Amino acid sequence: MSAVDKYVEALRALDFSKMFNNDFFLTWEKTKDEIDATFLVADALRALRESNISARIFDSGLAISLFRDNSTRTRFSFASACNLLGLAVQDLDEGKSQVAHGETVRETANMISFMADVIGIRDDMYIGKGNAYMHEVADAVDQGYKDGVLDHRPTLVDLQCDIDHPTQCMADALDLIHEFGGLDNLRGKKIAMSWAYSPSYGKPLSVPQGIVGLLTRFGMDVVLAHPEGYEIMADVEEVAKKNAAESGGKFTKTNDMAEAFADADIVYPKSWAPFKAMEKRTQLYGEGDQKGIDELEQDLLRQNAQHQDWSCTEDLMKTTKDGKALYMHCLPADISGVSCEHGEVDGSVFDRYRDPLYKEASYKPYIIAAMIFLAKVQDPTAVLQDLAVNAKPRLLGAPVGH
Amino acid sequence: MSAVDKYVEALRALDFSKMFNNDFFLTWEKTKDEIDATFLVADALRALRESNISARIFDSGLAISLFRDNSTRTRFSFASACNLLGLAVQDLDEGKSQVAHGETVRETANMISFMADVIGIRDDMYIGKGNAYMHEVADAVDQGYKDGVLDHRPTLVDLQCDIDHPTQCMADALDLIHEFGGLDNLRGKKIAMSWAYSPSYGKPLSVPQGIVGLLTRFGMDVVLAHPEGYEIMADVEEVAKKNAAESGGKFTKTNDMAEAFADADIVYPKSWAPFKAMEKRTQLYGEGDQKGIDELEQDLLRQNAQHQDWSCTEDLMKTTKDGKALYMHCLPADISGVSCEHGEVDGSVFDRYRDPLYKEASYKPYIIAAMIFLAKVQDPTAVLQDLAVNAKPRLLGAPVGH
Amino acid sequence: MSAVDKYVEALRALDFSKMFNNDFFLTWEKTKDEIDATFLVADALRALRESNISARIFDSGLAISLFRDNSTRTRFSFASACNLLGLAVQDLDEGKSQVAHGETVRETANMISFMADVIGIRDDMYIGKGNAYMHEVADAVDQGYKDGVLDHRPTLVDLQCDIDHPTQCMADALDLIHEFGGLDNLRGKKIAMSWAYSPSYGKPLSVPQGIVGLLTRFGMDVVLAHPEGYEIMADVEEVAKKNAAESGGKFTKTNDMAEAFADADIVYPKSWAPFKAMEKRTQLYGEGDQKGIDELEQDLLRQNAQHQDWSCTEDLMKTTKDGKALYMHCLPADISGVSCEHGEVDGSVFDRYRDPLYKEASYKPYIIAAMIFLAKVQDPTAVLQDLAVNAKPRLLGAPVGH
Repeated sequence: MSAVDKYVEALRALDFSKMFNNDFFLTWEKTKDEIDATFLVADALRALRESNISARIFDSGLAISLFRDNSTRTRFSFASACNLLGLAVQDLDEGKSQVAHGETVRETANMISFMADVIGIRDDMYIGKGNAYMHEVADAVDQGYKDGVLDHRPTLVDLQCDIDHPTQCMADALDLIHEFGGLDNLRGKKIAMSWAYSPSYGKPLSVPQGIVGLLTRFGMDVVLAHPEGYEIMADVEEVAKKNAAESGGKFTKTNDMAEAFADADIVYPKSWAPFKAMEKRTQLYGEGDQKGIDELEQDLLRQNAQHQDWSCTEDLMKTTKDGKALYMHCLPADISGVSCEHGEVDGSVFDRYRDPLYKEASYKPYIIAAMIFLAKVQDPTAVLQDLAVNAKPRLLGAPVGH
Repeated sequence: MSAVDKYVEALRALDFSKMFNNDFFLTWEKTKDEIDATFLVADALRALRESNISARIFDSGLAISLFRDNSTRTRFSFASACNLLGLAVQDLDEGKSQVAHGETVRETANMISFMADVIGIRDDMYIGKGNAYMHEVADAVDQGYKDGVLDHRPTLVDLQCDIDHPTQCMADALDLIHEFGGLDNLRGKKIAMSWAYSPSYGKPLSVPQGIVGLLTRFGMDVVLAHPEGYEIMADVEEVAKKNAAESGGKFTKTNDMAEAFADADIVYPKSWAPFKAMEKRTQLYGEGDQKGIDELEQDLLRQNAQHQDWSCTEDLMKTTKDGKALYMHCLPADISGVSCEHGEVDGSVFDRYRDPLYKEASYKPYIIAAMIFLAKVQDPTAVLQDLAVNAKPRLLGAPVGH
Repeated sequence: MSAVDKYVEALRALDFSKMFNNDFFLTWEKTKDEIDATFLVADALRALRESNISARIFDSGLAISLFRDNSTRTRFSFASACNLLGLAVQDLDEGKSQVAHGETVRETANMISFMADVIGIRDDMYIGKGNAYMHEVADAVDQGYKDGVLDHRPTLVDLQCDIDHPTQCMADALDLIHEFGGLDNLRGKKIAMSWAYSPSYGKPLSVPQGIVGLLTRFGMDVVLAHPEGYEIMADVEEVAKKNAAESGGKFTKTNDMAEAFADADIVYPKSWAPFKAMEKRTQLYGEGDQKGIDELEQDLLRQNAQHQDWSCTEDLMKTTKDGKALYMHCLPADISGVSCEHGEVDGSVFDRYRDPLYKEASYKPYIIAAMIFLAKVQDPTAVLQDLAVNAKPRLLGAPVGH
């Protein structure tokens, strides 16, 4: 039996045909089958690579990355995913390029896409902007393809926007699938997606929004906890409610961290900025009002400081299921006594979960690769089987197979 | 019949043997056969790629890019071309490297070339400098090869210098070949290479120079139009005259935009800086006279402002052949009412030609790839046929062939 | 006979099994067999490439580069080596990434390593820091591998630290092997590793330390010369003494440049900063004492200026063996009358040795590739033979073989 047979078999039961030549923006825009297919392909690609079997489907090809915010993890995950499939990454650096000099998005999108198979964008800083910008790019290359300017349709992968962080949340979910021994085992599990105090300011909302928007699809008991005033986007809450209703799960909110943690199977304590404040910041930024932005920052830091008790302490962890809830984080975390005086999590808690946290992160390159694979390959099961049967070694001279 | 048969057949009639192990600087340094061969190989490589057939001739190898000016299009075109052929691009970033710290060109050129197959340079800012610098690099690696320091001779590709912009102009010409249904159909066609007003300052002369230096070789009626004082390099005008005489075409100059546009088949309205001003700027730069440079900039902006009427308006377009001349631009354009109040072209004109403009740009990666291919491959027709016959899919599992 | 047979044969006599899945830090941490194996594999890889035979052992894979100091040569050598073997380089740019924002080394090292085969680091600026940092990274990925976070163990290559510059010194040694016609011919040869005056300040000690730490292993007569006060690390002197005793060579020190040059077969005149000053600088840097650093710089420049007579002049060269010692330098050199008024070497001396200097540098990419090869390939002789026998052309259509 080949390294990918079980994934291929599971894939046969799913309908994911619309992922071909499509993009990956928000997880809730994908059907349950499409989400499941992404997990399976990610696992299959990992099985290939860990068996020293090349998963290189592109003999040549470009992947373009556009990071409008600093990034280590997502940048390297994207680079790893593209390399795994045979694509070379070309950064579109707005400092180096002419993008900043008044070019329209439409023009640039076409100009960089003549030989681009994938475009990955991170644009998470301004509410109402990041996801909209990505759609503008996707629409532009769509039009370019229809107009015959491009002979192919580059796939857009959302590497974090103002609404969702799909590659992170899908990787988190795949980690949970493996931690709990299967997707079905997530049913009924309680996860506390909780705000936590950080001395820094203005962290994106995309992770908490992405988590409640995704995990509610698996019949989980999803609790969103935050102090008053730290609401996430109302639209995403509606998505989470609807998902929970459909999946037989639960979506509840609380302003009490302890309530969220009580008997939780999984906790995800993380700082974020209030949605309304981020909206105001976006407006001030649009007006070029730096003074207003600075004042807003001071206000938010003061507001944050009132909630230093929102921290993932050892005492709080004891109240979780058997005192052993899985602690998750997208990293880097603000760790009390390590990276700051008071932060999101006690140093001892973080330390105990270091390996699980790293494993959680390890799924992201494979999730991104799966998103690309499903968008570019017309018959994913056939190609996965071909790769496994041909079993071209990734590293010459090393054993093939586990 | 394979995807490249017709190009291979046409190539057989041409003599381009001296392109092997050579560089690509100015188009007028190449014979007509060599220019034609470059078009044919570009088309052949495009046919391969659009048939999902790998054109990867390098199993490994490096292409070095050195951009002394910001660039999106050319950077991505170069990256695309190199990737198509199997080369990885390594940027020589003068900020990051020690080039800025007094190293001689000769030393650096050799140090970066031990495994470099191609060196692409953009250096267009200073009159008398860019092309000279590229030759210095080419001479250095030539010497390195002769002295046994390098076991091979890296190929230099001029990605825009102070004299010519060969990759742009060759791509423009290939676009015209396809727009007009063949190289022979360009004979007698009138093109207006015209200065146009832009509120910005100091745009390079390489595009107008490259256009009149190249298109005069195809028997075209090439009109160079600009206000008095916006002369291009006299040497290039001589080249254009000589070309026109040899090809049975025409090269004329006028200070009247309307005259140039009248009954033109193609118009290329674009801003550039006066040659003499750029020469003075180079001198001031050499003297480190920032005050002088600033004053020159103000002078030039004032001079420009006197010619706001040099714009590609709807009215002017109506005077062209059937009112339907092909509008060309190397992009990005300064568009009236879009990117600036008054610019090179009316918004409605630009909008109407958006798709043709994007198609024009789409040839550049293939032109660059063809330049590299012809310089590195000893028997290009044989290798093109091999690629077509072996038909290795670029993307696994996708259909091969149109 | 294949291109690599003689190297493979020589390799069979050596024990280098512990290099597999290991790192390359200091040369004196490697056995003599391991050092010799690195030379042989470097030569074999060069023979393959110069025969147009692909040495690509990775079908896909990432190499991460982290340069904490500007670099052209080492950056390009690393990129060339990785490309030769099939790895794509991904820069970890501390400006772009979140490394600077308080992440622990352990976390970052794991986060970037999920698909990384190699990590190359240059960190040479602070005494007691660079090598320690590299070990921290190596330990982190070691732990990650043991903990199951990583499915493989990325190899660390020291691209220059505060103690050694192993890729430079191994390349220098391989150059000597070829210059003198074999490793055995180095026995008894006198090399003057001498301080030389430079108007700049604070050059790393890694080259002189690396040279005396490595060349003493080959039975050479190694003389370290410098003015009083320019001592290198005492630990490295001990290593050199021990090496010389074991190899039947010599390691002596002098404060007289002429004595070192007298009858030398090889001279390596190069500026460096006094160890104690660099130690103090590291301390001041740690304290954030910029004023102290500036004062130290002035002191050191004054101290340097007292030793302008320490220069590799034509007169001094005449005193070497037959007046024809091989002049070596890691480049770039400070050349009297060229890059500075008074520098490390006379312009005419440098000029005469330009080709040998470039050849010296040409070995670095192959040395780095050999270090990676030996760390990643379990049976290097078998894989080298496979590559030679399969003889896949690196460039399609070019002749295979010399």
